[in-house]
Amino acid sequence: MMMGIVVGTVVSTRKNEDLVGLRFLVVNELDQNMKETGKMVVAADSLDAGVGEVVLYASGSSARQTEATKNRPVDATIMAIVDELAIDGRSRYLK
Amino acid sequence: MMMGIVVGTVVSTRKNEDLVGLRFLVVNELDQNMKETGKMVVAADSLDAGVGEVVLYASGSSARQTEATKNRPVDATIMAIVDELAIDGRSRYLK
Amino acid sequence: MMMGIVVGTVVSTRKNEDLVGLRFLVVNELDQNMKETGKMVVAADSLDAGVGEVVLYASGSSARQTEATKNRPVDATIMAIVDELAIDGRSRYLK
Amino acid sequence: MMMGIVVGTVVSTRKNEDLVGLRFLVVNELDQNMKETGKMVVAADSLDAGVGEVVLYASGSSARQTEATKNRPVDATIMAIVDELAIDGRSRYLK
Amino acid sequence: MMMGIVVGTVVSTRKNEDLVGLRFLVVNELDQNMKETGKMVVAADSLDAGVGEVVLYASGSSARQTEATKNRPVDATIMAIVDELAIDGRSRYLK
Repeated sequence: MMMGIVVGTVVSTRKNEDLVGLRFLVVNELDQNMKETGKMVVAADSLDAGVGEVVLYASGSSARQTEATKNRPVDATIMAIVDELAIDGRSRYLK
Repeated sequence: MMMGIVVGTVVSTRKNEDLVGLRFLVVNELDQNMKETGKMVVAADSLDAGVGEVVLYASGSSARQTEATKNRPVDATIMAIVDELAIDGRSRYLK
Repeated sequence: MMMGIVVGTVVSTRKNEDLVGLRFLVVNELDQNMKETGKMVVAADSLDAGVGEVVLYASGSSARQTEATKNRPVDATIMAIVDELAIDGRSRYLK
Repeated sequence: MMMGIVVGTVVSTRKNEDLVGLRFLVVNELDQNMKETGKMVVAADSLDAGVGEVVLYASGSSARQTEATKNRPVDATIMAIVDELAIDGRSRYLK
Repeated sequence: MMMGIVVGTVVSTRKNEDLVGLRFLVVNELDQNMKETGKMVVAADSLDAGVGEVVLYASGSSARQTEATKNRPVDATIMAIVDELAIDGRSRYLK
């Protein structure tokens, strides 16, 4: 999975019917220093995540291995809210 | 999913028979500032999207999880027309 | 799918038996200005494409969704010969 | 697979229920000179790997082909602890 | 598929049990001029390839579509030994 920070939301009314009911969040990828890498993804939200939260998201077919996204045309899903990132035994991020 | 803007069309008569009936659009990837990243993809259209519209598209096997693209040799499909992109609570794009 | 130009061929006699009978072409990725991006892929040919032709190719599991490539260990397949690319309503490439 | 070095851990309590019981490690990708490429991934651990160990990890649907990760929403899994990397017959890394 | 040159081997004793019996080779990606791109992958070997040989390898789920790698947690497999690469009708590489 990749780590990212939720920075926004996408609203869409005209969309594939299999996406109805899913919430889509804009996630900026983070590196191990908690810096944004410049990459962005629009991920389905399975955890009611909010703007500013640090998350793990899965891509590809793995993004469909949840109750909320099974068989849906989704290629990125938020899977976890990060409580702590520790590098070499030291905390780099603590919620 | 990634966000992009539809900029063109691709016409092909000699193609795999499983692609017959699908429309293919040229989509330029956008970042969260609505700027083009330089990456381009040719995506199947499941929504009758038009040039100039901002869209979300899915890649990989997820691109085949729609009525229109099921079991077809397609690796990118437009899934939603974006109405609004909001970053940190502010609207960055409004259709 | 990605757009590319066929620039060459790869010959191999010692290969996985599930590849026997498939033809492999060297394809250089093109951007929307018909310029090469520097990326190259070796794609299975399902259309008898020739050097110099502009093509669309699918990657990943989608590359196996054709009669010719089903269940074969192939991750890129040429799916269409491009007749025309139109950007913003203007023809950028015409075969 | 890619080679990487385990540099840290991610702790999460609010997560998809299908991830419960899995341990997630921060892995920095390595090149053949054992230098970090700058890419990072958060991988599920199926081997009780520790910080400082050099590992191989699989991505995408392949990451789910283990007892521990089957049908789980995981897109990267540590598959092996590297004992030795030999380039052109010479040892570049020895555990 | 991508083209690469085999440059080394990886030895691992502590690994996922589904990898036992597979040999893993370090492969450097090549471009159409036979120059290394800087990208490296550790691929399963289904052909008894040796250091110095130019190969084609498949990635993702396609890497598991062989007798040797079926249902195994492998995301890159060597599929062919390249005999000749011809660009624009001229030989760029001949074994």
